[in-house]
Amino acid sequence: MKIFCDLAADAETLSVLKRGVVPHEVVLPARPASSVLSKSEPDSALAEADIAFGQPDPAGVLRAGGLRWVQVSSAGYTRYDTAEFRRAAAERKLLVTNSSTVYAEPCAEHVLSFMLAQARKLPEGLRSRAAGDSTAWLQLREASTLLQGQTVLILGFGSIARCLVELLRPFKMQILALRRKPRGDEGIPIVPAEDLAQALAKADHVVDILPANADSIHFMSAPQFAAMKPGAVFYNIGRGATVDQDALLYTLRSGHLAAAWLDVTEPEPLPVGHPLLGTPNCYITPHIGGGHRREAEMLVRHFLENFGQFLQGAPLRDRIM
Amino acid sequence: MKIFCDLAADAETLSVLKRGVVPHEVVLPARPASSVLSKSEPDSALAEADIAFGQPDPAGVLRAGGLRWVQVSSAGYTRYDTAEFRRAAAERKLLVTNSSTVYAEPCAEHVLSFMLAQARKLPEGLRSRAAGDSTAWLQLREASTLLQGQTVLILGFGSIARCLVELLRPFKMQILALRRKPRGDEGIPIVPAEDLAQALAKADHVVDILPANADSIHFMSAPQFAAMKPGAVFYNIGRGATVDQDALLYTLRSGHLAAAWLDVTEPEPLPVGHPLLGTPNCYITPHIGGGHRREAEMLVRHFLENFGQFLQGAPLRDRIM
Repeated sequence: MKIFCDLAADAETLSVLKRGVVPHEVVLPARPASSVLSKSEPDSALAEADIAFGQPDPAGVLRAGGLRWVQVSSAGYTRYDTAEFRRAAAERKLLVTNSSTVYAEPCAEHVLSFMLAQARKLPEGLRSRAAGDSTAWLQLREASTLLQGQTVLILGFGSIARCLVELLRPFKMQILALRRKPRGDEGIPIVPAEDLAQALAKADHVVDILPANADSIHFMSAPQFAAMKPGAVFYNIGRGATVDQDALLYTLRSGHLAAAWLDVTEPEPLPVGHPLLGTPNCYITPHIGGGHRREAEMLVRHFLENFGQFLQGAPLRDRIM
Repeated sequence: MKIFCDLAADAETLSVLKRGVVPHEVVLPARPASSVLSKSEPDSALAEADIAFGQPDPAGVLRAGGLRWVQVSSAGYTRYDTAEFRRAAAERKLLVTNSSTVYAEPCAEHVLSFMLAQARKLPEGLRSRAAGDSTAWLQLREASTLLQGQTVLILGFGSIARCLVELLRPFKMQILALRRKPRGDEGIPIVPAEDLAQALAKADHVVDILPANADSIHFMSAPQFAAMKPGAVFYNIGRGATVDQDALLYTLRSGHLAAAWLDVTEPEPLPVGHPLLGTPNCYITPHIGGGHRREAEMLVRHFLENFGQFLQGAPLRDRIM
């Protein structure tokens, strides 16, 4: 079999992949991708492949009649999540998996770093040299909170949410989640869509991990932000498009929310002069939540595990279609 | 009985205390303290008291012959931790407790906020508007790590360490601790003093929670920092005096350590122009680790629980002498 791989990885990681699929062959694109998350351009090698691993262009996938399985090297898969692609994949029995397992831990750790930085007032604390007993010092301590015992509402329940729930366990928080299709295996209470406003009103922390699709565009808009508890905090580790940024700006500037922490925005990065960049209680990192030193290596390992399953005709992990 | 209380607390919190000890009497100092952690001045009311709660001056405690129990409203108790005070307390059967239970969770959350901010590169990320696939962006992702699977060495094993160990459980880290007098109830491996250098060489994270006393002054000095693993991170949530700051400065500037995160320094705050303030990989918060919105309320609750025990002659929580 030919395995088309456009994953940007160092020589050592690629050789792990090549050795792992022997006697099958890894085919690289003519123009290598610049990062593990960059979208590759149409490539003729894809047309000949049995399996594709990386970020193959969706139109090329649909044209490549021999493809039986595509593993997307990201957690997000917006480009593939169209009615046309889903229909074609179903007709051709094309398996589609993503790499959400690989990104679950780094994204969950990233959100928790946001939550703790907010609770412990790290941005203010790191700027302050307040002397003990001074007014500034007392205010900083007074403004600090504990995650312990607070309530968090997670929007979107997949691998990242599962991992976050585990990381939050020792804080004895009340954890609720919204999930499009509850399966009963979540281990935490799932909020029915019609009770969203009540859940938003109760949560000290609202964590957006929604994928971007037709249903989720601007999911968080003015009524949702207005329904949030005064002084609560909003986090987005999912996709920028799920948030109406004008509504977020308004709610932050009005003082209704204490802060927002965003790893994703629309567009990325926000253009110089964008009002969210000048909003002091809006903290933004440039879509680095899933990144970590061993990212490419773990993506390859995850692929090889699924490759073993594929050879045996066994169920694949992180199947999305 | 007369309970001398110099805890700076709002009227509501003080009234919880007063109601909680009825029919006994709460006696306030002539000059109220400015914060829950400020050291009170010698006060004549202390001389008449049976119990003292707050930060009574140690010499006054030794002169107050009627005192049977002192509960210090902090976790640290350096001022009381002298041979003279200990001897006098033992002779008089004076019970001494601290409030470490109250500070355990906020201090543990504060350290974890440091650890995650370091792993997820929050200070750099929050300053960056790196575009996806840019060199700066790839470097930021490459520099990010996971706590998952790393090794942490905790110096000093009391309530804060116990709480930190619980918060770290879901990260599946290897956790080691150094404890002056191991009791076998720590639930994690305790490193014998003679194996300290090996443990320092192994740890990705070294967390200093040592109290300040004659044994711990400059505990972390040049040989200890030199023994640390290259690229490791040092955290101090204990007392500034336990660190030789010149040695820390040297190890940070040499690039041997990736970073230091300090909530405590000596003195506090560091004077303007202190070289640690100009060291980019040294992150400092101004001794706010134990603070949180409900601090005074929780200190009073903790005292009242111990007061109930005291009335029954039962063992007190957080007993230090």
